[in-house]
Amino acid sequence: MTRTISILGSTGSIGKQALEVIDGLPGKFSIFALAAGNNIELLKQQITKYKPQVVSVGTEELALELEKEVKNVKVLQGQEGLKQIAGDSQNEVLLVAVTGLNGLEPTIYAIENGIDIALANKETLVSAGSIVTGLAKEKNVNIIPVDSEHSAIYQCIGGKNSAINKIILTASGGPFRTSSIKQINNADVETTLAHPKWSMGSKITVDSATLMNKGLEVIEAHWLFSLDYKDIEVIIHPQSIVHGAVEFIDGSVISQMGLPSMHIPIQFAITYPEKFTGIKTGSLDLTQISRLDFEKPDLNRFPCLEMAYEAGKNGGTYPAALNAVNEEAVYAFLKGKIKLTDIAKIVSKALEQHENIPDPSFKDIMEVDKYSRKIVSEYLLSKL
Amino acid sequence: MTRTISILGSTGSIGKQALEVIDGLPGKFSIFALAAGNNIELLKQQITKYKPQVVSVGTEELALELEKEVKNVKVLQGQEGLKQIAGDSQNEVLLVAVTGLNGLEPTIYAIENGIDIALANKETLVSAGSIVTGLAKEKNVNIIPVDSEHSAIYQCIGGKNSAINKIILTASGGPFRTSSIKQINNADVETTLAHPKWSMGSKITVDSATLMNKGLEVIEAHWLFSLDYKDIEVIIHPQSIVHGAVEFIDGSVISQMGLPSMHIPIQFAITYPEKFTGIKTGSLDLTQISRLDFEKPDLNRFPCLEMAYEAGKNGGTYPAALNAVNEEAVYAFLKGKIKLTDIAKIVSKALEQHENIPDPSFKDIMEVDKYSRKIVSEYLLSKL
Repeated sequence: MTRTISILGSTGSIGKQALEVIDGLPGKFSIFALAAGNNIELLKQQITKYKPQVVSVGTEELALELEKEVKNVKVLQGQEGLKQIAGDSQNEVLLVAVTGLNGLEPTIYAIENGIDIALANKETLVSAGSIVTGLAKEKNVNIIPVDSEHSAIYQCIGGKNSAINKIILTASGGPFRTSSIKQINNADVETTLAHPKWSMGSKITVDSATLMNKGLEVIEAHWLFSLDYKDIEVIIHPQSIVHGAVEFIDGSVISQMGLPSMHIPIQFAITYPEKFTGIKTGSLDLTQISRLDFEKPDLNRFPCLEMAYEAGKNGGTYPAALNAVNEEAVYAFLKGKIKLTDIAKIVSKALEQHENIPDPSFKDIMEVDKYSRKIVSEYLLSKL
Repeated sequence: MTRTISILGSTGSIGKQALEVIDGLPGKFSIFALAAGNNIELLKQQITKYKPQVVSVGTEELALELEKEVKNVKVLQGQEGLKQIAGDSQNEVLLVAVTGLNGLEPTIYAIENGIDIALANKETLVSAGSIVTGLAKEKNVNIIPVDSEHSAIYQCIGGKNSAINKIILTASGGPFRTSSIKQINNADVETTLAHPKWSMGSKITVDSATLMNKGLEVIEAHWLFSLDYKDIEVIIHPQSIVHGAVEFIDGSVISQMGLPSMHIPIQFAITYPEKFTGIKTGSLDLTQISRLDFEKPDLNRFPCLEMAYEAGKNGGTYPAALNAVNEEAVYAFLKGKIKLTDIAKIVSKALEQHENIPDPSFKDIMEVDKYSRKIVSEYLLSKL
């Protein structure tokens, strides 16, 4: 079989690794379209190598620049470009690996056109889980998670979403797992970005340090697997070998393990339900790793995790507000404007003030997103 | 649904626990027959409680004794009794939990009659794997393992036997995991029977101490999952939480975990493919267990494991000879006639002398079994 795929976010970390996976499976994929933000140098190389029919870039300016330099490829731009690519019925699977809420509309377009989604964009499910999963059910479309934790759960369940007692998402604990509150309070950007196990973008690495990342994953899991929040557990597992586990009603626990590598979940998602020999990923030798540790997360030192649970349980637009406020706060931290621990404070404050919209529409979510970001800017201004 | 089940070995450890599982699932099972060896006191209680149509006991004498004391139940005896029960088409599933090669013929009878097998009898697959699995395939009969390790693999594979790189069977390492060769050489029966994790019968507990048990499981796994011996790995895992794991071709590893309890694999086997809430088994809390260790088995201190691999690879009647010689040697050890380390020596010697019959018939296997046991008796006599 040859599967037609498009990648939204082809020059990002997940997009590049997805292309490596595709390189390792010659003849298995035909690339319909690639979409990048502003890294048009890398996109040009990808065009030469993968010969997509369509590409899209972040702005009109970049699109005009690119158009002069490439041949035999249609060049689109902006959110409209992502939507056009996503909804094209030539796609058999769409890898959504753009960051932020940019991924939401294209994902909805693809689902409406019956295209399976390999989802590497957290915001889509965190902010608009009810809309996205509801539509996917209606259109009988698979949403296969690319996140290693959700991929783990998906693999453990084996497609059948029944007889589950609870699921367990593991977290490495990040760079401050063993740090005191004082040390976390004084954490600088450099230390925060030095993640012990996973090499990822800056935003998600900060989220890993605060455990907000795990909190967002809890909300994603709620939607992906139709589970109550009380049945989603987070445990700290510093070796990052067990990515997730499912406890079934008979007491049996199935877990998925692997060396920390995004190639496995990416390949799983874009080739599902088939399995192929993986690339670059060595065999997991448990005797060499020798020891796996597990501990409960400390909610005192990592309050973001509990806030995410709360936002999730409150439902409506709370998760969208949580996500937007957190994202802005993380950017402020990365720019040196606030301390790491201010992120939790800002999120907490914003959630307290949030006026919930139960059962929100797409428009509601976009507005809450915009408004929540404004709150953060105002907060930062007030501190100047 | 009500499933009609018979239990061969109802007064043994697995049989009793199976009845506990059935107690926990009221209305789900109807018991057609129970077969015991010589514990007719317990069998009488089971007859009163479960009201089987048929029972069987070890000898004619016991059958006559029992017949006088029970009503409304047909009393059979011996190997003929086991066969009559096993082959009765009222059975929907047969739990084979008798020990030794006594389980083989009844299992074959059940398979020939299209009855699914919940298999807790190692010897059946070790000695006659090709016959049993060949027939099961032909008759489209499920053989669901009850052993926790094979149950783990079965659960990880999820029924589909494809895209497997290798499987991993875990072993607790037994009471001599950290002992020196000298200490093992001087091991007495009491220490040998003090298994750190599992409470089982004496024979299997000695096999766990020598790792022969894991070796026999490797041979079972070869037949159950149609795998090459090179793709079956044994690792030592002292906490006995991970019971088995499967590495797929994409590098992803699925493992099954649980508290050490036979209720889970027994229930899995007799209710397959359905899942019900388990009894008596607490939720697995990895953070409470806190740590899982893994190490390579030491073949110098535990040579039986390698002998089993060799016998398996040699095929034919080698595994039947291995099994018979080991069983007799273990009994000799339990009776204080030989040292623990003599078991490996006797097995090694017997395998060296073994004249292999490739592609053996049922009769060949029974003869090799008998002959191999005689070798051990002769060896023991020669030492007097």
